Amino acid sequence: MVPGLVNETQNPSGIPISKKVVLSTRDLVEKEKSSHDKVLKSYRLLIADLCQQFGGGHPGGAIGMAAIGIALWKYVMRYAPHSPKYFNRDRFVLSNGHTCLFQYIFLHLTGYKAMSFDQLKSYHSERYDAFCPGHPEIEHEGIEVTTGPLGQGIANAVGLAMATKHLAAQFNRPGYDVVSNHTWCMIGDACLQEGVGLEAISLAGHLQLNNLTVIYDNNQITCDGSVDLTNTEDINAKMRATGWSVIDIEDGCYDIAGIADAMERSKKSDKPTFINVRTIIGLGSKVQGMADAHGAAFGVEDVAQMKRIWGFSPEEHFNIGEDVRDFFKGLPARGEQYVQAWNKLVDDYTKDHPDLAARFRKRMNGELIGWEELVPKQFPDKDTASRAASGLVFNPVAEKIDSFMVGTADLSPSVNMIWPGKEDFQNPNIETACGINGSYAGRYIHFGVREHVMCAVSNGLAAFSPGTIIPVTSSFFMFYLYAAPAVRMGALQHLQVIHHATHDSIGMGEDGPTHQPIENAAYFRAMPNLLYIRPGDSEETAGAWIAAIKANGTPSIISTSRHKLPQLKQTRREGVLKGAYVLEENENANITLIGVGAELSHALGVAKKLKEQGVEARVVSFPSWRLFEKQSREYKRDVLRRHRVPSVVIEPYAPNGWERYADAAACMTTFGHSLPGTSAYKYFGFDNDSLTKKVLGYLDQVKTDDLLRHEFVEI
Amino acid sequence: MVPGLVNETQNPSGIPISKKVVLSTRDLVEKEKSSHDKVLKSYRLLIADLCQQFGGGHPGGAIGMAAIGIALWKYVMRYAPHSPKYFNRDRFVLSNGHTCLFQYIFLHLTGYKAMSFDQLKSYHSERYDAFCPGHPEIEHEGIEVTTGPLGQGIANAVGLAMATKHLAAQFNRPGYDVVSNHTWCMIGDACLQEGVGLEAISLAGHLQLNNLTVIYDNNQITCDGSVDLTNTEDINAKMRATGWSVIDIEDGCYDIAGIADAMERSKKSDKPTFINVRTIIGLGSKVQGMADAHGAAFGVEDVAQMKRIWGFSPEEHFNIGEDVRDFFKGLPARGEQYVQAWNKLVDDYTKDHPDLAARFRKRMNGELIGWEELVPKQFPDKDTASRAASGLVFNPVAEKIDSFMVGTADLSPSVNMIWPGKEDFQNPNIETACGINGSYAGRYIHFGVREHVMCAVSNGLAAFSPGTIIPVTSSFFMFYLYAAPAVRMGALQHLQVIHHATHDSIGMGEDGPTHQPIENAAYFRAMPNLLYIRPGDSEETAGAWIAAIKANGTPSIISTSRHKLPQLKQTRREGVLKGAYVLEENENANITLIGVGAELSHALGVAKKLKEQGVEARVVSFPSWRLFEKQSREYKRDVLRRHRVPSVVIEPYAPNGWERYADAAACMTTFGHSLPGTSAYKYFGFDNDSLTKKVLGYLDQVKTDDLLRHEFVEI
Repeated sequence: MVPGLVNETQNPSGIPISKKVVLSTRDLVEKEKSSHDKVLKSYRLLIADLCQQFGGGHPGGAIGMAAIGIALWKYVMRYAPHSPKYFNRDRFVLSNGHTCLFQYIFLHLTGYKAMSFDQLKSYHSERYDAFCPGHPEIEHEGIEVTTGPLGQGIANAVGLAMATKHLAAQFNRPGYDVVSNHTWCMIGDACLQEGVGLEAISLAGHLQLNNLTVIYDNNQITCDGSVDLTNTEDINAKMRATGWSVIDIEDGCYDIAGIADAMERSKKSDKPTFINVRTIIGLGSKVQGMADAHGAAFGVEDVAQMKRIWGFSPEEHFNIGEDVRDFFKGLPARGEQYVQAWNKLVDDYTKDHPDLAARFRKRMNGELIGWEELVPKQFPDKDTASRAASGLVFNPVAEKIDSFMVGTADLSPSVNMIWPGKEDFQNPNIETACGINGSYAGRYIHFGVREHVMCAVSNGLAAFSPGTIIPVTSSFFMFYLYAAPAVRMGALQHLQVIHHATHDSIGMGEDGPTHQPIENAAYFRAMPNLLYIRPGDSEETAGAWIAAIKANGTPSIISTSRHKLPQLKQTRREGVLKGAYVLEENENANITLIGVGAELSHALGVAKKLKEQGVEARVVSFPSWRLFEKQSREYKRDVLRRHRVPSVVIEPYAPNGWERYADAAACMTTFGHSLPGTSAYKYFGFDNDSLTKKVLGYLDQVKTDDLLRHEFVEI
Repeated sequence: MVPGLVNETQNPSGIPISKKVVLSTRDLVEKEKSSHDKVLKSYRLLIADLCQQFGGGHPGGAIGMAAIGIALWKYVMRYAPHSPKYFNRDRFVLSNGHTCLFQYIFLHLTGYKAMSFDQLKSYHSERYDAFCPGHPEIEHEGIEVTTGPLGQGIANAVGLAMATKHLAAQFNRPGYDVVSNHTWCMIGDACLQEGVGLEAISLAGHLQLNNLTVIYDNNQITCDGSVDLTNTEDINAKMRATGWSVIDIEDGCYDIAGIADAMERSKKSDKPTFINVRTIIGLGSKVQGMADAHGAAFGVEDVAQMKRIWGFSPEEHFNIGEDVRDFFKGLPARGEQYVQAWNKLVDDYTKDHPDLAARFRKRMNGELIGWEELVPKQFPDKDTASRAASGLVFNPVAEKIDSFMVGTADLSPSVNMIWPGKEDFQNPNIETACGINGSYAGRYIHFGVREHVMCAVSNGLAAFSPGTIIPVTSSFFMFYLYAAPAVRMGALQHLQVIHHATHDSIGMGEDGPTHQPIENAAYFRAMPNLLYIRPGDSEETAGAWIAAIKANGTPSIISTSRHKLPQLKQTRREGVLKGAYVLEENENANITLIGVGAELSHALGVAKKLKEQGVEARVVSFPSWRLFEKQSREYKRDVLRRHRVPSVVIEPYAPNGWERYADAAACMTTFGHSLPGTSAYKYFGFDNDSLTKKVLGYLDQVKTDDLLRHEFVEI
């Protein structure tokens, strides 16, 4: 037992861990006050040394945050260094990810095994196997989410806190708070400037996420100079207006007791809490309080001087004294106590609530069972927009399988993702004017007109624990561009989030060029570890959802039409899983037509018209490049047969990348036009007559110019 | 003279237009009160009819905003329907662009010639030549910026207001406020939720843009239902905390006098003003006050019922009575008075300040003279990062040519865009902690860590008047992804904005995969009307800037390296202007190596190593696809010679799209890795030894598998 570390009021599981302990956190901190000075200085000098070692990195912020780190890791946060994935651990997010040394050093000192001293020294080294990248990465022990692009982390933290609220509402029962962890998020000035951070703050305030504490490293310095070059708002007033509790800390460089006390108070608030901690960037360095402390090593002389002033030997580097190590030594044991207490709690819960506990364990293990039978086996032979088909396919799954949480960026009426009896994930204290209420147990999330935070929060929901929650987002395809940085972060972190992107073609019509995606797909098709799928009818939409649900280490975008599409006889969901497949074979073909998504039926129509002109075509459906690339060379050659006949792709997108699979493109090289869908197709030559003419023209061209077979032609 | 329209206090140019007028705006509105009811109803019914005509559109918001429109166009805004481009006109931005009928109808009623009644009825029609697209488009008379993607318009409005502040500071002299227009921006609930809108609000408050008034159509309804589903913040308190004046209007459906008075008061504020106008969406319809009023026609019966209740004939459609037309009839004449008064002012100014007036006229005409001589003709033979080369090339131009305003998203120390003696564009009342102050006359903009609004504001700066201001933005290439929706809006609107995107390669190093762009270029290369240029050394960087400055209807991204690059002997700026050119010809070549940007020298190094192995290579430098596509077929064939030898592209990006120009790619299919630059190159096989091996392996493969010549191979 580590004395004095836990008291009953601090134990959110509700069961006493130790009767001996009565000290408040503040008292406890005060009691150990004599140790702090050495710890603070040692930590700060270690950062200076680590940046000096290879002459780079971000020392200033991490140095300024020393006291915050001690308050958090030593006194407040509930975690287990030797059981880093323990389910009910507090989550910590370093949204100002460039200060990663802050986290790496505390992971090391508190006893995370992977973060050896040797590893700690790998920061900015040439080691391929380093655990200390320039920004925290989810792959490494003790890191909950990858951060770096500013504003993402705070949004992830909102997602993590929502996951706790939701799972608690689903699984906790009186006396059994089996999910009760807190989320801590560290931010700098930038997360209060980036739009996605501001969206996250607004949403968290609305949802009254009182299990979220954001700690603001308020050093008033950014790369360009002082923050007041660009931001002079009253941040505390702004946070309060947005539904947050605010606590101010004046002396954030030293006041560990005040910070720890504020953190404890934040856990008792009925709102999310913003702790505004005044710090000094690069404290102790010659450049302290200046922008120069932000992103460069201090230099040998400055580091030596810091050491001299603080009573350390300038000759000694990376010096962590035994007393400093002792200060943190009890933390792994304390962590195991949390784990054991929680294990016992879950055991007792299992006895009292066996069915619920069985479900809880399945969710914790990320088991997804029985969903495949819920997908409709076939579809009526009637025209259906693929956005509607998405509903037909997925809503029965969402209805029955609790793992899915479905959100929309204020497009509920357009994206068809509502199942019968859905309940909103909502602040239970709100009674809305429109009468649609909910609770934290609900699984349908109104994100507001906030696409970016929808996707960034979904990353947090997914990161809570692998497979426990599978978030689904929805909006127009065009507006996933607002969310692209978050979609990217999901792909980078191998988080399964399914994005339902509707209105994906110029066929979406009157909303015009600002809403018609032309070049979006080129981006998402190029993104590593992202599955972009564009199904052509309801059957293919089933294939798309099956592929996305199976892709448990990969986010997906299912890209669907606003307008109705015919249900084709030739389509097959198994074909979608291969990325591309032959829709109509023709051994005498003069040309291969590649059809995609909303325009797949155009390819079939053109083939028919070509036949009337004596030209034989084979037709390939090509919903997903990424899935196709996973097939064997033989399969790919057999589908495309490029060495035998030229191929033309039909898709009103920028053609970039189709050159890999086609010789010519009936694609777009301009932005779209505001017209009703059918007229928009016609305006740009995507009606069957125009397309047929283009294909015939291309075949004529190829006859007269041999070199065209080595080139890609836009027709 | 239109009686009662202008009084001295309303005339920002400071010269009296009419001595006869003494009424305040409020008095004037009150005087005409008896006409309002008919105008309000006629306008509202016209919207209902226009949406009913083709069974679609967004009626509700526009109907709710009727009184705001009358206050604005009839009583407050200074514009000239018959001189729509008059330089000192007030700018109006409809940030909630889906309510476009609001603007179209007032353009029609106030006498904009292009917006005939026939044109007005083209909304949602199949007419290719309609001026009434689903969202306002800059190409059409009376529209200042294209809007639609929510949050963009308010950011553009901030840019427009900044343009006024800047030009006023540059050119106004005592007694001569030659630039004195006001910017009016209409927003809905969404612009207060979208991150880019929140960034814009924060920046405008900081910059104290008291020439900006944002009018909030506060109908508390979004697509999903009531706003309190997702947003329950105290918006007025939040706006005040962010540095805005706030005025509340309770009865926004009818209180024209109150709205007009608030607008007039906003022009006297020392801050930007937020007018919070309570309205009712779809007023008069059965679905008034409900989400159903937002995005669909009301239905024949509902429209008929509205007419009956308001005393109109249900059989008459598109009915605008003569009395309603009379109400707006004097506005073109009033507009011409503004124009004439301003013309006289500028004439007098020309006499008193001839040199300044000459400069002013040049700026108004968008003339850009003498910049080309300022670009260095050559560069020293030393290794230089291309981000530094950008500074060498462009800063002498920025220093001398006033048209350029240069901004950064808090990366001044990294992007090298500061010229000697640069002054910040800054709120002159702020004394910053770091001592870097400025004024509205300054041309260097600290945008804060707000990439998205940097680019969206820059669109506004550019849209003020063609060529008057050419904005330059700068950040890491990776973070242009945050700004992608704004970059896209610039391309769609043909606005010249130059984006300097640095750290564009895995060679940027330790910051790791969150900062290393892999798939970004695929997006920007696919975007219509965007010039993406990746220069390979200082000479090519000169070419890139020359191309971007010449591209006056196109935004550009100049994509540069963090790390030092050798100055190559073979590079030529003229080659950059052609998109691609032969760097090293070789008539006996077995292969073409395509080198790009930061890795161009790798291609040359590999060619040398291949020669040692008996393989002859020709080397092509390929900085820009878009520029290359503009060349003749002959030129392109001669550069690539794909029919003669296979070609391999070397670029650590996703290969998507290179298939058009190369047969094989040494590219990236994964995200990056946190390592020092040289190690990162090595880790991914982008050192010359690994690349040489890959190329040799590819040549061997081609020998044994004929079909590979029809396929694209990743090596």
